[in-house]
This record gives sequence, C-alpha cells and structure tokens, in this order.
Amino acid sequence: MTDQVTTTDTTQDTTEDATQDAHQADAAADALASSTSEASLRRSEQRSRAIEEQIAKDPSGFRMLTGDRPTGHLHIGHYFGSLMNRLRLQEAGVETLILVADYQVIADRDGTGPLRERVQSLVTDYLSIGIDPARTTIFAHSQVPALNQLMLPFLSLVTDSELYRNPTVKAEHEATGGRPMSGLLLTYPVHQAADILFCKANLVPVGKDQLPHLEQTRVVARRFDERYGRIQADTPVFPQAEALLSSGSLVLGTDGTKMSKSRGNTVELRMTADETAKVLKRAVTDSDRFITYDPAGRPEVANLLTIAGLCTGRDPGDIAAEIGNGGGGGLKKYLIEVLNETLAPIRARRAELEAAPDHVMAVLREGNARANAIADATLGEVREAMGMAY
Amino acid sequence: MTDQVTTTDTTQDTTEDATQDAHQADAAADALASSTSEASLRRSEQRSRAIEEQIAKDPSGFRMLTGDRPTGHLHIGHYFGSLMNRLRLQEAGVETLILVADYQVIADRDGTGPLRERVQSLVTDYLSIGIDPARTTIFAHSQVPALNQLMLPFLSLVTDSELYRNPTVKAEHEATGGRPMSGLLLTYPVHQAADILFCKANLVPVGKDQLPHLEQTRVVARRFDERYGRIQADTPVFPQAEALLSSGSLVLGTDGTKMSKSRGNTVELRMTADETAKVLKRAVTDSDRFITYDPAGRPEVANLLTIAGLCTGRDPGDIAAEIGNGGGGGLKKYLIEVLNETLAPIRARRAELEAAPDHVMAVLREGNARANAIADATLGEVREAMGMAY
Repeated sequence: MTDQVTTTDTTQDTTEDATQDAHQADAAADALASSTSEASLRRSEQRSRAIEEQIAKDPSGFRMLTGDRPTGHLHIGHYFGSLMNRLRLQEAGVETLILVADYQVIADRDGTGPLRERVQSLVTDYLSIGIDPARTTIFAHSQVPALNQLMLPFLSLVTDSELYRNPTVKAEHEATGGRPMSGLLLTYPVHQAADILFCKANLVPVGKDQLPHLEQTRVVARRFDERYGRIQADTPVFPQAEALLSSGSLVLGTDGTKMSKSRGNTVELRMTADETAKVLKRAVTDSDRFITYDPAGRPEVANLLTIAGLCTGRDPGDIAAEIGNGGGGGLKKYLIEVLNETLAPIRARRAELEAAPDHVMAVLREGNARANAIADATLGEVREAMGMAY
Repeated sequence: MTDQVTTTDTTQDTTEDATQDAHQADAAADALASSTSEASLRRSEQRSRAIEEQIAKDPSGFRMLTGDRPTGHLHIGHYFGSLMNRLRLQEAGVETLILVADYQVIADRDGTGPLRERVQSLVTDYLSIGIDPARTTIFAHSQVPALNQLMLPFLSLVTDSELYRNPTVKAEHEATGGRPMSGLLLTYPVHQAADILFCKANLVPVGKDQLPHLEQTRVVARRFDERYGRIQADTPVFPQAEALLSSGSLVLGTDGTKMSKSRGNTVELRMTADETAKVLKRAVTDSDRFITYDPAGRPEVANLLTIAGLCTGRDPGDIAAEIGNGGGGGLKKYLIEVLNETLAPIRARRAELEAAPDHVMAVLREGNARANAIADATLGEVREAMGMAY
C-alpha cells in the first residue's frame, strides 16, 4: 500500500496514502510477522542475493508475480521503485506475470472509479517503459475465473483470526478511519495467495514490510499440501514462493513527503516535459544556496539529487558538487533536464500507444487468455488433489 | 444443516447432526434474523402460498435453486422432507438448478472424505427419485469458476460483522466445538449469495429457520444494484430471490430423535428391502399395544404412522385405526410393506443407474456445462456493471 517504499508490491496502491506506520506498529503483535524480525530480515536479504546470483546464471527456474492496483497513473516513484526492477528482471530472462489488481480497488472503497480508463492507462504505462508482452504476461484479476475460484479451497486453510492478524488487513482497515471492514478486505490475504499460487509463482518482489504477506501465502501452500495432498508424490501442487527483496530505490515527493498524486508532489510518466518542469519548479529545497548531498540534514535537496542520480547513473554527491553554488534553481534546472531526458523515450512510446488503444487492450486480452490457460491447468490439479475431479 | 427439519435447504448436510437450537437461540440477536419474527414469518407463508398459486397458473417466470452437501447417502428424511417437493415443482414446470455443494464439505472439517463417490451417489439418488436432467440442471460447486468468482464482488458488499452475525455461520461454528473458524465458513453467506445469484434464481425452497440466510442474499443483490448499477436501466442485474417455505414433511428417526445416518435411525434410499425391514424392526414404539395416532402423547408411534401416511397418501389416524390391536409389531409390518413399496421403483432405477456410473457422471458434466454457460453470462454482466469489461 505504500506508494514509494515498496513499489514492487503486488498490492501497491498508486494514488492513495500509505499506511506503513500502522503496518509496522501492528507487525510486532503478529505471529506471522515474525518474518520481519531482524534475523529473519537478514536471512531474507541473503536469500534475495542468492536468488539474484541464480538469476544471473540461469533464470529459467523462476516465475515471478507482481502487479499494481489500477487506481491512478504511474509516476516516477513507481518507476524508480519497482518498474525499473521489473524491467531488469524481464531482461534477465525471468518469466513474469503482472497482475492488474482490479478487484482490490473495491476492497476498501465503495466505487470502482473510471476503472476501464485506469486499467488502460496502467497497461499503457507498462508497455511504455518496455514491458514486453511477448515475454511478460499482463492480466487483470477480474478476467481469470479459475484464479478466483482458488479462493474457496484456500479459505478453508486459514482461520478468521489469521485474517484479522494480517498486517495489510489491519493497516488498510485502520486507514479507512472507522469504516466497517468489508469481507473483501478481510479475505485479502487469501486473494493474494490465489494471485501468487494460481501461476505457481516462486518469486515475488516485495519490500521488507511485506514479508509477512508472503508468509501467509507460503502457509496456504504448505497447508494445501498437508490437507489435500498431491498429484505427483514428489511434488507439492504449490511451490513455496520466495521474496525477492526490492532493489528499487526509495524516492520521496518533491516536497520531501511520501509521493502521492493527490499531494501534487510527483511526476507521472504520462506528463509532458512542460508539466514535469512545472512540478519540479515547485519542489521544496532550502535556504542554503550551496548544494550538498546530505540526506539526514537536507532531505528535500538530497531527494532531488537522488532522482537526478537515478536518471543519469551518476553519484548524487558528484551532481551536488557540480551544481555547487547554483542553488535550488540550478538543481531543479538540472533535474528537469535529466528527468525529461530519461522519460522522453517512455513518453514517445506512450504517445504512440495512446493513439492505439485497441492495441493496448488487445495486449491485456492476450495476457488474460494466457493467465486463464495457466489458471485452468492449476485449478484442474487442485480439483484432482481434492478429489473433486468428476 | 438440519437433517430433517428443513430438508429443502441449499446447505443441507446429509449426515451430520443439526444445530437448529443454536440457530434459534442466536437468531434473536441478529438484525437480519428479524425475518424470523412471527409477523415476518406470516408474511413469508402468505407469499409462499401466492407463489404456489402462481406456479400452478404459469411456472415460466420462476427459476429455483436448491441443493445438498455431498456428505452421505440420501435417506427418507430427505425424500419426504425435500426431494418429493423438488420433484413436485419440477413436474409443475419450475425450472430448477440443483447444487451439489462440494466446497461446503470443507467449510467446517479438514478432509473431503471420499468425495467423488459421494457426489456420484448423490446424483444417482437424484436421478433415482425422478429428477429429470433434461429439465433440471444438476451441477457441482467446484466445477463452475465464474460462479465462484462472484464471491469477490459480493465480498465487497458485506461487512465482517454481518458475516459473524449470520445464523448458519454461528451455529455451524458452535457445532464444531471450539474448532477455529475457517475463512470458508466465515464467508459462507457470500458463497450462498453466489450460488443463488449466479443463475438469477428467484425462488429458493427453505425452512423457516433459514429465512435469514436468504435475506443476506437479498441484501447482496440490493447492494450490488445500489453500488455497481445496472446494464439495463429498468432491471437490476440480480433479482430479489424469494423463499418458498418448505411444504415437505418433517419425519423423525425410527427412535423418535433427529434422523441421522450416524444414529442408524433412518432408511437410506439405496438400502435393500431387507435392510429397510431390519432398520424398521428396531424402531422404538411403546408399551401400549393399541395403536393410536397421538403425536403429542406417543411421538414415536405417531412418527411411524406419519411415514406410513406419506407412503400411502392415507391419513395416519386411519392407518392407526386399521392396525388397532396389532401393536408395534403390526405397525412395523405395515410400514415395512408400504415404505418398501414406495421405494421399490426408486431402488429399481437406482440399481440401473449404479450399473451405469458413466451415465450418472455424464449427467453431472452436462449439468456443469449448463451451469457454466449461465455463470459465464452472469459474470459478463457483472463485469460490465462494475466497469470491468476490458
């Protein structure tokens, strides 16, 4: 749910404010959240490094599931935080499925909003940044019935108290400010298990605060194996999905707070160069004319330098030294230039894709068809394991 | 869940003990359960009579959903309580769908048991009593993904506290004796809504203690209309399903208690005539040799007379008078004869069907295919109403 902290979250919300604090406050009380203990986190980091090494050698054993909620347009927080990382893994040869989590949009709000437009925009963003539908499957949650059917067997494997203890369920519910909890939000950990397991994904990019979510999916997979058994004696129906801790970068909004469309402190991928300049010119800096890279002392300035570094591949400190007495104005001028340069090819592709909406939706439909074929095969195995093949 | 009280329940459990007492104790505290108030019950009874009149005139406007859990073999409690009534409605021309509720089997227990055999036996029982697959669709819950997908939008329309307040959820959970509540049991009212609404059933045969269940489905249908809207301006996507209060007869076990396979106090449809005789010879009567029909004073004897009356279409009092000084032995002899006579054609058909298991399963598969076509069409409308048609 965090906009910029864990932007490779399968449940990422692209417009709404995050609830990370609530997450972390509750996590201590959660047994499953033991996966966020320091020791456990170190193990996960080590494991992620080992997975990255394995991917570099041979990516063929991995299938990755990731995704976003279609609640708004993707911005540079997503780009630097998760999209670049997805692209990197795609290019490294990791088979990837990207979930457009449309049903999650209604977990904690009444209306769906202009959902079709948002889904189309999201898929357009994916294609613009270089997600290749020939290698990566983009699909929408609502379009894959066999995936959703997995909810039922999986619901038999969790208890109500486990659902309430889930950090996301708790955090999202708290974020709604006293709104009654919907059944869809309460069962969220089970949807997530279905999303990951329907395609037998063994790799899920997450931020460290999301390790407990993945643990619930692992628990469901293990319990399915214990309770309903296998088709092949030596292989559980579902793998134990592993976390790939995000190597994406955390960037804040131009005011130094969480990046969020509603705060007007971010640059969306779809903006024009002029709109980008306008947003960045309003960025908060400080009264010290001499630019230095000092994340602790000068967080807003450091954040702009970080973004400039991500655009150029340069060290933020070097950029600061180069700007020197150029002040906030000089820094912004530089950032506007390099960010627009970075986004220019993406925007050019985006313009082409916007002119071809039928193509974009055909990509989604092709992805849906692939996801359905995978889900149907998995559901067939689930029925067989459960003795429900009639 | 009640074996013989409300045998036209879509959630009927064919082997396990009932939890009706818990139902009724909790119902008072339940807002939705106001539908069990005396006034409301009178209205439902009136409405059921009006529906029956309408069916007699023109059944074409009705679609009925009913069903059973495949947890054991059907017995005479089911036959007199619900199956005869279903058959009557089929013959009256009411389009009927019968759900084999296989996923409900795992709502409150770990294993599925020999599910395939039980499903096959259940379908065999249906066909044996005269359910005609050309007119009535028999299908299994697990085989209709689009039906199950409706869970997700419907879960967005209920709150967690509504789920906990549901009488079935409470009663079934209490009946498990402290077992943690599974997510599948907790979300039971939403499965039921999906089961009824996927085919837009407008008629559900229920016992009076089950009126609140149906009310939850009606609430889901109304909220869907309010929140997600319509495709055609003048018609909600989902109808308001109406209760058809059971006109089936309540019969007790041969020991005068609730009928249940585990108590050995019932006659299964599949039993032989000799097995039937054996069960009935053990039936509890009393020390008064002169047989009278006195339900309050001599409940066990009256129950056997009731069953004999159901078999013959005769008045139980007339049968008692005829037996007179014949005693319990005379009553049992008469009952064995007329029950075996009633069940003989059913058993003959059952023997034929047992010899043709492929035919039985082909009937189920054909029903599944029909149910899938209906569910796919409904899901298409749901997606369109929700703006999820991409």
